[in-house]
Amino acid sequence: MNSLRLRLYSIFTRLVIKPWVQRVKNPVEARQAFERHARRMHRHPAFAAYRNGVIGKVPVLWASVGPVSRPEVLLYLHGGGFIVGSPDTHKHMVADIAGAVGVEAVIPRYRLAPENPFPAGFDDVLEVYNGLLARGLRPDQIMLGGDSAGGNLVLSLLAHLSYRKEEIPLCAFVISPVVNLEGGYDSLKENAKSEVLLSAGRFDELGKMYLGHQDCGQDCASPIHAMFERCPPILFHHSSGEILRDDTLEMQRKLVAKGHDVLVRSWPNAFHVFHIMRGHFPEARAALDDIAGFLKARLTSSDS
Amino acid sequence: MNSLRLRLYSIFTRLVIKPWVQRVKNPVEARQAFERHARRMHRHPAFAAYRNGVIGKVPVLWASVGPVSRPEVLLYLHGGGFIVGSPDTHKHMVADIAGAVGVEAVIPRYRLAPENPFPAGFDDVLEVYNGLLARGLRPDQIMLGGDSAGGNLVLSLLAHLSYRKEEIPLCAFVISPVVNLEGGYDSLKENAKSEVLLSAGRFDELGKMYLGHQDCGQDCASPIHAMFERCPPILFHHSSGEILRDDTLEMQRKLVAKGHDVLVRSWPNAFHVFHIMRGHFPEARAALDDIAGFLKARLTSSDS
Repeated sequence: MNSLRLRLYSIFTRLVIKPWVQRVKNPVEARQAFERHARRMHRHPAFAAYRNGVIGKVPVLWASVGPVSRPEVLLYLHGGGFIVGSPDTHKHMVADIAGAVGVEAVIPRYRLAPENPFPAGFDDVLEVYNGLLARGLRPDQIMLGGDSAGGNLVLSLLAHLSYRKEEIPLCAFVISPVVNLEGGYDSLKENAKSEVLLSAGRFDELGKMYLGHQDCGQDCASPIHAMFERCPPILFHHSSGEILRDDTLEMQRKLVAKGHDVLVRSWPNAFHVFHIMRGHFPEARAALDDIAGFLKARLTSSDS
Repeated sequence: MNSLRLRLYSIFTRLVIKPWVQRVKNPVEARQAFERHARRMHRHPAFAAYRNGVIGKVPVLWASVGPVSRPEVLLYLHGGGFIVGSPDTHKHMVADIAGAVGVEAVIPRYRLAPENPFPAGFDDVLEVYNGLLARGLRPDQIMLGGDSAGGNLVLSLLAHLSYRKEEIPLCAFVISPVVNLEGGYDSLKENAKSEVLLSAGRFDELGKMYLGHQDCGQDCASPIHAMFERCPPILFHHSSGEILRDDTLEMQRKLVAKGHDVLVRSWPNAFHVFHIMRGHFPEARAALDDIAGFLKARLTSSDS
């Protein structure tokens, strides 16, 4: 049974935020509202430190908590449907994970659609990844993370590296990624009502805004189509009641069939990327701890 | 990449054990060979203690390591295709888990097919479960575990309790369970070659031996058909290259759609219930530790 606080926040989200998500038209207005919500509601870890930077031509935000004890870096790609969100809307949860692991995180301020459709955002992510390598990090010193559209970008980056037969990062985690922009799976309909936050009816619209005139079958937009001959150990989190539930299960099935090290945790009746509400209910705490535990275990096994 | 020792053992299993599994006809001979193999090859934790007992009319083996610090009990159902195996072939890995968690484990010596077809074995399991309750344990003081056919029995017991609207155990873990005796899934064909241990060609035969003249669509023989309105937090382990790969993924999909707390770990290119080779390669150690970690986390959250 979920905590009372999570259940109350789910009701608030369903009554207030979901209708707004369903009707908002202007991307600029949507971005401003999300940033405002983040400033008011998101709770930061004590001693979290953030600093702006640039890698290549891409602005980034570095996030850490207290002393950084390890040379590895967490490259985190924020969600927001490719349309909204920024390092500022996600830095609190990224700092939480990075702090628990003892590394610094870098969050690219990748370009957003519809002004900058695919592959602009993906190109920015790739530029930051290659910029980290150019600074002397080895691929196995990079951990990837992302949620929702950022999870799509994580998987797309892994697909790209696999296709190019490049070395792959140490590990990755994704929270409720979008894996297929060509339509979605059963859960899009099955969970349209149980979904607390997102609008099933606007899924196609989102895909069109991101893809512009590009073909959505491209591996780097819909990673479910990619080959994934290589893939590092990867952790998925998703919520059983969300419309993107099956994106995780389909991607898992593909990666498992390819013989990769895959871990999937399904959170009962939580909501899309509930991790972002850290400090508000214990499930977010447990979920962030679970991610940090996964990353730490990968670091330990790479040390030995 | 798996350890050299696991890879060597996989080759040995494929060259020596798999052909034997494919041709052995006599269940008694098969049982004796498995017991002999267990005595020679299975490594026991230091200070493991085993004692025989009886619950109801069912013989059981109690297993523990060192002092038992908690009142909860791990009820473990061994695998062996419903035909072979016993508490003695699995006690070493069960003791390992129980010892790490600080509880005692009980392993029923349930009746085997074909001499005792379904529901004989299942009835024995149910008798032991109810016997534990009769001794004063609450359902939330029982943790369930099982591998292969024993995983089927775990899921069948959970299906039965859910159907009867009885209270459910604290949590469960299953290693590569058989969830559908009516045929199996894509991985039965896809992984027929990559499978190291089991014989895809004998899957139907196994089902017939277990079911006798019963209907295999019964919820308590093929738990994939059960409703699972209730289910405790459950951890699945399976190997990506085994013929039972999809049994785990199909069961996961069903339980996630019902909104349950489900965790699935896919081990890359290990083999069916590789955990049983504890002490021989590090993957078995990591897998048993992962199970113990899951159980301890459930105990901790039930304490608070």
